[in-house]
Amino acid sequence: MSGKSIPLTINEFRGPEQQTRDDRVAVEEPLEIRLGYDTPDGRTQSSVSITMRTPGNDAELATGFLFTESIIHNNDDVALIRPCGPPAPDSGNTNVVRVELESGVEVDLGRLQRHFYTTSSCGVCGKTSLDALKVTGAIKLAFDGTVFDKDILTEIPDKLRATQKTFDETGGLHAAAAFNAGGDIIVSHEDIGRHNAVDKVVGALLSRGLLPANELGLMVSGRASFELMQKALMAGMPLLAAVSAPSSLAVQLAHEFDVTLVGFLRGGTFNVYANEERIS
Amino acid sequence: MSGKSIPLTINEFRGPEQQTRDDRVAVEEPLEIRLGYDTPDGRTQSSVSITMRTPGNDAELATGFLFTESIIHNNDDVALIRPCGPPAPDSGNTNVVRVELESGVEVDLGRLQRHFYTTSSCGVCGKTSLDALKVTGAIKLAFDGTVFDKDILTEIPDKLRATQKTFDETGGLHAAAAFNAGGDIIVSHEDIGRHNAVDKVVGALLSRGLLPANELGLMVSGRASFELMQKALMAGMPLLAAVSAPSSLAVQLAHEFDVTLVGFLRGGTFNVYANEERIS
Repeated sequence: MSGKSIPLTINEFRGPEQQTRDDRVAVEEPLEIRLGYDTPDGRTQSSVSITMRTPGNDAELATGFLFTESIIHNNDDVALIRPCGPPAPDSGNTNVVRVELESGVEVDLGRLQRHFYTTSSCGVCGKTSLDALKVTGAIKLAFDGTVFDKDILTEIPDKLRATQKTFDETGGLHAAAAFNAGGDIIVSHEDIGRHNAVDKVVGALLSRGLLPANELGLMVSGRASFELMQKALMAGMPLLAAVSAPSSLAVQLAHEFDVTLVGFLRGGTFNVYANEERIS
Repeated sequence: MSGKSIPLTINEFRGPEQQTRDDRVAVEEPLEIRLGYDTPDGRTQSSVSITMRTPGNDAELATGFLFTESIIHNNDDVALIRPCGPPAPDSGNTNVVRVELESGVEVDLGRLQRHFYTTSSCGVCGKTSLDALKVTGAIKLAFDGTVFDKDILTEIPDKLRATQKTFDETGGLHAAAAFNAGGDIIVSHEDIGRHNAVDKVVGALLSRGLLPANELGLMVSGRASFELMQKALMAGMPLLAAVSAPSSLAVQLAHEFDVTLVGFLRGGTFNVYANEERIS
């Protein structure tokens, strides 16, 4: 029950050979995030997201999501987080998490109308790609002297990999980690969704009072998309490093908001796509 | 302008060496899909999706999305597809596509309330994972004698790889392909999003009158998640093969709807997670 991977039997084909053997796959289940908050008409509760996630650290996932979506702004906004309702009969996991905000915290759920949605009636027509997206509450990360040594940076992938217990079992999970300039992993999480792994890391930093994380870098196991860059930016993290390639929009956002963007960080080498001044 | 990758200058760090060189990254831009359709009160137009995609084959992406979401059911439902509005000033891409349905085609946009959303007021509480998700209009794919030879299957990854022109340039794109039992690639597409690559393939099959594709397999470059399995199922494709790992929910859905699920198809070997009768 309620693990990050489940056992199953598979048929393995290796050239002319075929065998039945035990294996494990990563768990993917829906998580519904419900938000309780005050309105002028009294207390209300809304379902604000359903995401496909790997169970575990649902509280961090929820608060990380709410923080990077600019719905909450610090840990004191949250009065209570708890699993809600009966467990799913097949897995035993509780797939709803309820976040109750402190009274008086103002909530604008309009922000969640698909988070990159535009409010203009014209939609994304004729706008620049970034203008068409909502980068709510993001602040330019001016260079404050925080630098990451290139030799320390090249050690981060192996350190992240060492934390990926469920990946070892299944080969099927993404991971994200916050790390400092000394090369220490401050927090790391795995999830079937890259954005969820990052939300879990951001939620954990939030609960420890470490946001904005202006002295920490964010490492992700896959590619660097717009969405992950936006989350790094919202968490105040001045460096995003990815094992694989960045997208055009991640590069554009990095330039616009002065985030250092590192790609193809693996095997002791890497590329810098924006704001190299933070690499020493 | 308007390509699938863009040029840029990067700083490459290789041990003690560092050099500036030209490189390319995959384009990621928002695409808004607008749907025109009849209501009892007359013709209307709704924005039904904004997805981050790599430009190109936007018409197939739109119709593949609408088909796998069960909004349209065959090619005749579509009267017209065209780019809409002025191009984005930075990229030159038109990032809105308008799909006009034939008059009389009934549309239930409730299906799109986040496609895995439940209509119950209880949300996903206490349901089995699959019950909590909406697999609208999916039909069990009874075994009809279509089989894929294991030696032909192991050749598909290289054939898919050979079609990935933008991946060669950027290392940053997913790909999907429909293939037949003879090992021919019928259609393949690349995109920054796995689900978009699959939607483009399904949209192309739809426009050629090849749906339901009961004799074709679907190959994807990454992992096999619930979402991709659902799309294969909606397209009537009896086999989903992934280069990497499947998720627990993909396995569950494969069993429930009799889809053959192949994972870790690479280097001449693979694992079968469900319905092995289609592998010969």
